[in-house]
Amino acid sequence: MLQKIDHLGIAVKSLDEAVAHYENVMGVPCEKKEVIESQKVRTAFFAVGDTHIELLEPTSDDSPIAKFLEKNGEGLHHVAYYTDHLEEQLKQAEEAGCRLINREPVPGAGGKRIAFLHPKSTYGVLTEFCTKDE
Amino acid sequence: MLQKIDHLGIAVKSLDEAVAHYENVMGVPCEKKEVIESQKVRTAFFAVGDTHIELLEPTSDDSPIAKFLEKNGEGLHHVAYYTDHLEEQLKQAEEAGCRLINREPVPGAGGKRIAFLHPKSTYGVLTEFCTKDE
Repeated sequence: MLQKIDHLGIAVKSLDEAVAHYENVMGVPCEKKEVIESQKVRTAFFAVGDTHIELLEPTSDDSPIAKFLEKNGEGLHHVAYYTDHLEEQLKQAEEAGCRLINREPVPGAGGKRIAFLHPKSTYGVLTEFCTKDE
Repeated sequence: MLQKIDHLGIAVKSLDEAVAHYENVMGVPCEKKEVIESQKVRTAFFAVGDTHIELLEPTSDDSPIAKFLEKNGEGLHHVAYYTDHLEEQLKQAEEAGCRLINREPVPGAGGKRIAFLHPKSTYGVLTEFCTKDE
């Protein structure tokens, strides 16, 4: 079962400008900024209700986010759903014919375990399932 | 203040196929389907936590969603934020330099009042503010 939308990942060229937009235009305070070396991104998080906006700025030209920006421009990069039963969700998705990017969960930010479904199997929305083990 | 993400609007070519995806791959039951004549779309809603996924299929070639699909293919169309203070949010956005599509709220689905910010002002994410008057 998917408990909630954990976060929306949004690719931006300039983190600082986009943070100012969310703070000043949207009126949402930034919770934290974090560099994720393994993904080559600098991120900023904003809480909205029980979910988060995660802004993603590439820290190098070979970052996956740099490639996304080159192809698509700024905009939504992925939607992440929180589940207490990550392996079961992945199994259900695969059995229903969905193409998975990660058949096994990989480590994500904030101590989470995550796995991506392929956007060609998810109606154009790159989809992440994530969980946090106790 | 933005209370929560009200819904994510996702443009799809075939509503029935996409509904089957959300039900079978994601394991989320469809809450309701609804034709919105004024927007020339057929929609399906899914609850996830305190927000919703809204799938949007065009009902004619001149639907805004048909144009979106032609240009971008399937994928996220807009992010809608719920606020109890729609006019104040719009004023704050405009004063912070954001370009608005609707300077005054217009009627939306489910008896809501809605207004869109321009994606050129919102880092590539078409953004809706919505509220429901008591």
